Amino acid sequence: MGADLHAARRGRARLKLAAGKLDALLVTLDANRYYLSGFELHDPQSNESCGCLILFADGEDWLCTDPRYEEAAGRIWPRDRLLIYQGSASAPERLNEFLRGRLKGPLGLETGALSLACGKILSRGLRVRAADGLVESLRMIKDAEEIARMRAASDLNNKLMDLAPDLLTPGRSEKDIAWEIERFYRQNGAEELSFQSIVGIGSNAALPHARPGEDLVRENVCVLIDCGCRVRDYCSDQTRTFWVGGRPPALFRKALDQVMEAQRLAIRAIRPGVSCKEVYAVVQDYFEDLGVFEHFNHGLGHGIGLQTHEPPALNSRNETLLEPGMITSVEPGLYYPEWGGARWERLVLVTEDGCEAL
Amino acid sequence: MGADLHAARRGRARLKLAAGKLDALLVTLDANRYYLSGFELHDPQSNESCGCLILFADGEDWLCTDPRYEEAAGRIWPRDRLLIYQGSASAPERLNEFLRGRLKGPLGLETGALSLACGKILSRGLRVRAADGLVESLRMIKDAEEIARMRAASDLNNKLMDLAPDLLTPGRSEKDIAWEIERFYRQNGAEELSFQSIVGIGSNAALPHARPGEDLVRENVCVLIDCGCRVRDYCSDQTRTFWVGGRPPALFRKALDQVMEAQRLAIRAIRPGVSCKEVYAVVQDYFEDLGVFEHFNHGLGHGIGLQTHEPPALNSRNETLLEPGMITSVEPGLYYPEWGGARWERLVLVTEDGCEAL
Repeated sequence: MGADLHAARRGRARLKLAAGKLDALLVTLDANRYYLSGFELHDPQSNESCGCLILFADGEDWLCTDPRYEEAAGRIWPRDRLLIYQGSASAPERLNEFLRGRLKGPLGLETGALSLACGKILSRGLRVRAADGLVESLRMIKDAEEIARMRAASDLNNKLMDLAPDLLTPGRSEKDIAWEIERFYRQNGAEELSFQSIVGIGSNAALPHARPGEDLVRENVCVLIDCGCRVRDYCSDQTRTFWVGGRPPALFRKALDQVMEAQRLAIRAIRPGVSCKEVYAVVQDYFEDLGVFEHFNHGLGHGIGLQTHEPPALNSRNETLLEPGMITSVEPGLYYPEWGGARWERLVLVTEDGCEAL
Repeated sequence: MGADLHAARRGRARLKLAAGKLDALLVTLDANRYYLSGFELHDPQSNESCGCLILFADGEDWLCTDPRYEEAAGRIWPRDRLLIYQGSASAPERLNEFLRGRLKGPLGLETGALSLACGKILSRGLRVRAADGLVESLRMIKDAEEIARMRAASDLNNKLMDLAPDLLTPGRSEKDIAWEIERFYRQNGAEELSFQSIVGIGSNAALPHARPGEDLVRENVCVLIDCGCRVRDYCSDQTRTFWVGGRPPALFRKALDQVMEAQRLAIRAIRPGVSCKEVYAVVQDYFEDLGVFEHFNHGLGHGIGLQTHEPPALNSRNETLLEPGMITSVEPGLYYPEWGGARWERLVLVTEDGCEAL
């Protein structure tokens, strides 16, 4: 995706700046920065940023980074609009000085993606206002190229899930299976995992975000696999829960039937104009009628794209109305710490008159 | 590493709480949380936390998370001291309510690892104070087990670097080589990369943090490889720069000789009692004498352990004095955007009377 695309996206973001009466927006969330500039999808680690983008209402945007990234930034961004943090001032001090000289109106901040320490320094003497979700509201609606990439990533997931039962041979560890999954993705065109794969054997299936460990596949056990990959930056995400050994026992069959049916009901409800909380309520009502709702301890789904988790979330509180081009997961789960549980997940794309599973 | 070890570490952190006259510390940095509790080394993504730890001066610590992680947390932490965010209040609202009922003195915050949005809500009505670096100051000094793990991770790096010239055959892409590196690590006992491997061919070697792309190895080109892995949670990190083809040209040989000599000088200077900035100055002086200092655009090194980048940093400003048990990288580099450059890096452990390369 080239410079024109990023400029067009910044143009759309600028309309929102004007609507919010902001003079500029400081883009600090890694995925937002990348979406609007093409500069670095990932920060190096959780407490280290590789730069930020300043979007000005008047249209002269600046990319800001440290000398390690200067050459990389210069390849994709005009060098006369690069701010490189250098000398004895820290990055937020340098940003503050730069912004004080240029702002006329308030500065929007992504307060969920900016540390207290940085925010305090860079806000000195400036009028600031929370502008969380401004860029995410654009990212929620995927264009044709983004959809194509997510379809490609989901195709790999569908293939993987077809192969998955063969991976679950007794004696293999969660870690071994997770590594097989990663190799499959990488050898079939994905550039990385979209998140650490979850492989939960037996009672570990009751840990919605289990980290693969040394536990081994054995006969008569459930195994939950939740994994995804990135194809040209865009994520997939899918869960299935399998039974290893002979005929699954009634308690597993029942949980699996219930989550599959819950998913079917939710997908049937997804179409433009329906709110996220209404979709969640469909599953809540169904699980409550069955008397199993207490075993469902997470949201029904999440938006996905450049991040695994992004808006819109399908939960009990989100009033966002679904629109064509949105992509969310639909992943009801029922967990029983004694023996495990079941989750069944796929991604759906909201279309003009309903939705389509990817 | 078990519950006793984490309790002992919390005991040491508590002494620092008392010294700083803090009633409690809210631990939000993922690596710090893991170091003190064993709960989740990685947050799910850059703007999403899976929980935090509250360390109280009086010794009753609490682990806080959302329902997705409740079962995982309960396996490593007393369930009667788990705070699970539930109901309609958000996580920071719930934490604020909890803390208001319990604090007598000020609360320490990791302001570099807490968002403005969360910090604002959870500080309401509380006395808060920045306490950044408190846990990192403990993490800086590695114990015998941590050193053993980092030695194991570095052993894999040393082996990999010996094999690396064989990977650099003309026609292979940066991405292919990065994937070979990852497979080597995983098939030899590492659980993951410590960071995205850097493979920079030709002028890409001048991008200190280059992302591997489609560029191909060719004859008569330099290739910079900077990579590391995690073995039982602890990171390695090493860089070498290679020449592919016949005899390297003088400009490459010169840059490589200079960075290797700079590394040798720095390692000779590293011992307890010397400050980080003094070590940096050794390399700065050497490069200035050669007239190449402008081509060195990053710090000389960084501490490493549970994170790839952690204190102490070897740069021009850090006055921290080196102590036995500290581990840092030593990585002088010289970059020339026209053709590439050279970096040469290894990790060293500060010992009683000098240092030891890992």
